[in-house]
Amino acid sequence: MPEEALIFDVFGTLVDWRSGVASAVSRALPKLDALAFADAWRGRYDPAMEEIRSGRRAYAPLDLLHRENLDATLIEFDADLSEPRRVDLARCWERLPAWPDVPPGLERLRSKFLLAPCSNASVALSTRLARFAGLRWDAIAGAEPARAYKPDAAVYRVAAGMLGLPPEHVTMVAAHNGDLAAAREAGLRTAFIPRPFEHGQGRKRDLLPSGPWSVIAEDLHGLADRLEC
Amino acid sequence: MPEEALIFDVFGTLVDWRSGVASAVSRALPKLDALAFADAWRGRYDPAMEEIRSGRRAYAPLDLLHRENLDATLIEFDADLSEPRRVDLARCWERLPAWPDVPPGLERLRSKFLLAPCSNASVALSTRLARFAGLRWDAIAGAEPARAYKPDAAVYRVAAGMLGLPPEHVTMVAAHNGDLAAAREAGLRTAFIPRPFEHGQGRKRDLLPSGPWSVIAEDLHGLADRLEC
Repeated sequence: MPEEALIFDVFGTLVDWRSGVASAVSRALPKLDALAFADAWRGRYDPAMEEIRSGRRAYAPLDLLHRENLDATLIEFDADLSEPRRVDLARCWERLPAWPDVPPGLERLRSKFLLAPCSNASVALSTRLARFAGLRWDAIAGAEPARAYKPDAAVYRVAAGMLGLPPEHVTMVAAHNGDLAAAREAGLRTAFIPRPFEHGQGRKRDLLPSGPWSVIAEDLHGLADRLEC
Repeated sequence: MPEEALIFDVFGTLVDWRSGVASAVSRALPKLDALAFADAWRGRYDPAMEEIRSGRRAYAPLDLLHRENLDATLIEFDADLSEPRRVDLARCWERLPAWPDVPPGLERLRSKFLLAPCSNASVALSTRLARFAGLRWDAIAGAEPARAYKPDAAVYRVAAGMLGLPPEHVTMVAAHNGDLAAAREAGLRTAFIPRPFEHGQGRKRDLLPSGPWSVIAEDLHGLADRLEC
């Protein structure tokens, strides 16, 4: 029985949210610049979570924030969409493609580790996205069990606790240095894998590791190699 | 994407706790009547949860209750065991064999449904038991997310909520009529599958369905047949 776990950031680290969202936007709103819309929609993600992290708003699941942010982005782009099509488009975050190394990489890693997402997604969203993208999990950790949003330390600590492991037996895997800095501060081990095309061409942040992370690898196959899976 | 879920009782319904626990007891305490010890240990399960359901005690995970009940059962049997061996024996609930229809039955059922355990086990315990017994889950529901013990209605409602589904889109599957009665009261659909040998020979309760359950089947293959999976 594995007595260590790997927990994963999902949006950007495991799935290509930008292509997936843009493709759903282009179907729903064919006249718009779908990539610009996807970027604008995603741009409202962190400010919406910050309302909750700061305590100005009670915990609300990411599904609701995605829907509110969609409504705001539609106004920003002067676009309209019927209520049923808004409901459907808001759920495109459940249907995002995995980076190609992810499903086979997770299969290798599960030979030695318990695996769980540790995303800001709700359990329902993580569960559906896992089905769509072919991510095989042992359990679903993340924002909802902690009723807090990363990089709040509670999210990482609750993830370790619900897996029955001390934080130092759990490694946070992410393509974002900030996520890893917070996980490290919460007592977890850390693994950085870059995703240079998360934001399309010309990414400037997070191309390189910026902290003393426990493991650095080029993708999940490289991570499985370094962890001898 | 499945828009319905099946959630499952685990101990008795999916895994043969009595044989699994007795086999661990016989290795740790070869001089004892292992089946009698397993029955006595399990006999303390419901009274321990009742302390929490009644509000006399705050929520504590089943792992802790199993350990406390093991200590009490050792006294009852006038047996001793070192601390490390108690720790190990208490975790035998993570290593119980599935009934033979369960792993292939779950594979069939996941073609049409989201699948999750809805057990009184903690997330850590459900996760480890799933690895050992070969149960493939989409998410882990049950007592811990609700911080309550079945048959408290909160457990069933939180399970549906965390899967993002209304209760009437979720079916509770169990070998215990009482579990199903509570799930039905909470608004879920219900499926009864008998496990005549859960308590060895001579079972008297729960041999037959005792309520107006939505589905009745002989095992998970029969359930998959009836649900056209």
